[in-house]
Amino acid sequence: MPSFSATTASTETPAPNDRSVGPVLSQTAHFDTPLPLACGRTLPQYDLAYETYGILDAERSNAVLICHALNASHHVAGFYADDPDNIGWWDNMVGPGKPLDTNRFLVVGVNNLGSCFGSTGPISTNPATGKPWGSDFPIVTVEDWVDAQAQLADRLGIAQWAAVMGGSLGGMQSLDWAIRYPSRIRNALVIAAAPNLSAENIAFNEIARQSIMSDPDYHDGNFGAYGVKPRGGLRVARMIGHITYLSDEQMEAKFGRQLREGLKFSFAPEFQIESYLRYQGEKFAEYYDANTYLRVTKALDYFDPATREGGDLARALAPATCRLLVVSFTTDWRFPASRSREIVKALVRERRDVTYAEIAAPHGHDAFLLDNPQYHAVVRAWFQRMAAESGVGDDFPRPSRQ
Amino acid sequence: MPSFSATTASTETPAPNDRSVGPVLSQTAHFDTPLPLACGRTLPQYDLAYETYGILDAERSNAVLICHALNASHHVAGFYADDPDNIGWWDNMVGPGKPLDTNRFLVVGVNNLGSCFGSTGPISTNPATGKPWGSDFPIVTVEDWVDAQAQLADRLGIAQWAAVMGGSLGGMQSLDWAIRYPSRIRNALVIAAAPNLSAENIAFNEIARQSIMSDPDYHDGNFGAYGVKPRGGLRVARMIGHITYLSDEQMEAKFGRQLREGLKFSFAPEFQIESYLRYQGEKFAEYYDANTYLRVTKALDYFDPATREGGDLARALAPATCRLLVVSFTTDWRFPASRSREIVKALVRERRDVTYAEIAAPHGHDAFLLDNPQYHAVVRAWFQRMAAESGVGDDFPRPSRQ
Repeated sequence: MPSFSATTASTETPAPNDRSVGPVLSQTAHFDTPLPLACGRTLPQYDLAYETYGILDAERSNAVLICHALNASHHVAGFYADDPDNIGWWDNMVGPGKPLDTNRFLVVGVNNLGSCFGSTGPISTNPATGKPWGSDFPIVTVEDWVDAQAQLADRLGIAQWAAVMGGSLGGMQSLDWAIRYPSRIRNALVIAAAPNLSAENIAFNEIARQSIMSDPDYHDGNFGAYGVKPRGGLRVARMIGHITYLSDEQMEAKFGRQLREGLKFSFAPEFQIESYLRYQGEKFAEYYDANTYLRVTKALDYFDPATREGGDLARALAPATCRLLVVSFTTDWRFPASRSREIVKALVRERRDVTYAEIAAPHGHDAFLLDNPQYHAVVRAWFQRMAAESGVGDDFPRPSRQ
Repeated sequence: MPSFSATTASTETPAPNDRSVGPVLSQTAHFDTPLPLACGRTLPQYDLAYETYGILDAERSNAVLICHALNASHHVAGFYADDPDNIGWWDNMVGPGKPLDTNRFLVVGVNNLGSCFGSTGPISTNPATGKPWGSDFPIVTVEDWVDAQAQLADRLGIAQWAAVMGGSLGGMQSLDWAIRYPSRIRNALVIAAAPNLSAENIAFNEIARQSIMSDPDYHDGNFGAYGVKPRGGLRVARMIGHITYLSDEQMEAKFGRQLREGLKFSFAPEFQIESYLRYQGEKFAEYYDANTYLRVTKALDYFDPATREGGDLARALAPATCRLLVVSFTTDWRFPASRSREIVKALVRERRDVTYAEIAAPHGHDAFLLDNPQYHAVVRAWFQRMAAESGVGDDFPRPSRQ
């Protein structure tokens, strides 16, 4: 059994105002038991990269799993001692005294299969060939991810999560946990998600994939063997995605029609929004793997629990017996509030214990990552009630600064 | 002076139910007078391709100019005798007995500079080099287009248009006519347009351009010299554009999550929406010129009459003394109704004669091209009032089938 406290290395005492979990360690769990996948193939062995913050209580009842969205990872909170600017993607949500309070909960971040950030994926070595999986890595699904996460839970000795929590694609994993592992989850937080992708959502994903696959440096996914990567395609894919994360209003407020230096009558970036998107695209193309991008967008496209019940979402959600918190944001047009309400209505029809919060926020889909006071208050209250009702974390000493 | 009736060749008598203008001829007007452009360069000489339908009345007072949007042309109505399936892009709007009735009005369709459908553009020969302009063709603006259209009006002997009409980018040209040529236009129809592009609009255009320019077959715009074209980039550019033409609702109703043949766990098209977009992209990449696409999107980005008055749209529109009809569509998210209302409010502030119709339509931006009864009734009534008040077309014999 790994020592959980070890991953929140406490060699540096944080300053009173610093509510970061501090320096953290990325860990890897190796699994030799083959994992059957939705596509029909089996992953013979695999690694899952993960991080933990906080301390598992004696009853092993205070563990919270964080599922990540498209391009994030298991690095949810804190920073790496040797890379202090590399701060976890949900650091404003997870930490001592934060909405998800690591003084009470043991938080686990996990990197999904097919990713390029530590868990087994296209850039990992295929044991059968000794070469990177590349384009031969299977197309994995939300269900596959959740099955692998359940293996990690077993490995960590966590029979039941206090909660599984995620935003966007992470929220879909959270929902899938509630449906398919009802006895292993007491709470599901489904944030800025949808019961499936709309035609428009799929269309955006398909364009991103086409952009990558029509880049000559893609080489049918075997670009690694050629020592290149389809940067141009990845850049455009990211730019497309990025538009859908922001609200029209927020983009207008932030950039509007601001020019960099006046009109140049050229195709170089002239408007600030152009520079911003190009920069985001370039940055993404540097660190992200194209084969991973293709697979993650497919996992999004495929997620549709209602299909298991002939399109009846309520019946598909009926097995979910945990408490659910569903959160949406008013200006999110990627996964509009109406899609979250579909989930809520289906759960209500099945008389499930669901709470719904529709947060007024100008930031579009990105809002789920941002520090919105109302949103954070809702999540904080949820975890406080959870802790109060179950006595979770009561056996921990309270730091005086809380 | 060209013969207008000649372009609506009447060798084939249409059947009673056929309200097409029938077979039409594409004509070309050559201009030797240099055209100064907004970018500071001058086009030494140029051609404008155009078509006309109907008959100019004795007072030369019944001419209506149709301005086209992104990828359309001067082929507004009717068909070509040798290519009968090639029907004009606004054939449901323009024809005998149609909302814009060619029994009363002489309708002129014009192809804009920089296009690839007959008017001078990147695929035309640069007289200075004897080679195609290619990437050296200037970046042209809405104002440049309108200036060239004014030259065509002179050539056709039309001192004043009864109306200038356009949708989307065409509506911007219509608005520019009203502002900069107030004495030459009695009515402006500004449909599904905006006073300028939002940051989000620019972002979509920039992604389309990046997609083209990062295609290795783009060759800095000189792909013609290499005997190739950046098909992959054009395909993705068109797919991006296409999403913004349709409403989320319409895409959902038309495609939803329909599969072609079940999930294949591959990157081949699986959902119907994927096939549809790929098909649209392929088709577009066949017939459209990449250098034209880059320029047309720039013309969209640059259009912003308010900048001439320090951002004050009302003051910018003040010179427009014609009657204006502004039309928007409820589900258009490319140019939402709120953007049309900006134009209307600015005109009202200047006490201009403006009528506004916000049409309930599920089809998104594309609605301006479709046969929506309420929309067509509004346009029909507008032209009928125009004809009645000015006696336009009264000297024409009414065909008995009307």
